[in-house]
Amino acid sequence: MPDNADRTDERGPIPMFEPDFSKGGGLIPAVAQDFRTGEILMLAYVNAEAWAETLRSGRATYFSRSRNCLWQKGATSGHIQLIRNILVDCDQDAVIYQIEQVGGSACHTGHRSCFYRRLTADGHLEEINENPA
Amino acid sequence: MPDNADRTDERGPIPMFEPDFSKGGGLIPAVAQDFRTGEILMLAYVNAEAWAETLRSGRATYFSRSRNCLWQKGATSGHIQLIRNILVDCDQDAVIYQIEQVGGSACHTGHRSCFYRRLTADGHLEEINENPA
Repeated sequence: MPDNADRTDERGPIPMFEPDFSKGGGLIPAVAQDFRTGEILMLAYVNAEAWAETLRSGRATYFSRSRNCLWQKGATSGHIQLIRNILVDCDQDAVIYQIEQVGGSACHTGHRSCFYRRLTADGHLEEINENPA
Repeated sequence: MPDNADRTDERGPIPMFEPDFSKGGGLIPAVAQDFRTGEILMLAYVNAEAWAETLRSGRATYFSRSRNCLWQKGATSGHIQLIRNILVDCDQDAVIYQIEQVGGSACHTGHRSCFYRRLTADGHLEEINENPA
């Protein structure tokens, strides 16, 4: 469990993480990144409850804006995401989940990554070659 | 300029990109990623105007939620971000700017990446070793 006591190292005090949910209506974005390759697999949102559940379970848990409920990634598909490391940005309103993607697909389309298309010069979307899962 | 005519390739029609700003109050998140190393450098937001300006200028342009205005990254610091490629996610409400970071720092703290800290098991933030710029 987190403690609230200040800690220090040779660089000085080590702050507690205090996620800033205020600017995003109670949500912050979480980027899921393959912990081995660095590939960005998806982006979703976390509220305070999803954040707590992610820490408790060690599995990436999000808040679904469309369904308005907690969403443990892979609860239906089996394609869960095991948390290996979490990075936090400078103003504590975005996180990176460095994860192990079970089952090979982060995307509901079956692609390894939700970001499987690139923008062309004339505004279209073309599929990119994916790394092997 | 984008045209609205459908295009096709051997996989079928190639869709136009139609960013979905509806779920985020007019904003979608843009993850800035080093186009060479894949390192995630920052996450910020784009409205329709920032998106158009990014495409027009070839430089990453965001919408600042705190200042409530367009924000061309590096306009003050000189640490601009040159767009090399843009990836789009499955439901067209998040993008990755694959960029060349001029000046070496994406973060206003002087760190190469805004994500320069990791969460420890007891809820603190500790700095990680950064890749050389």
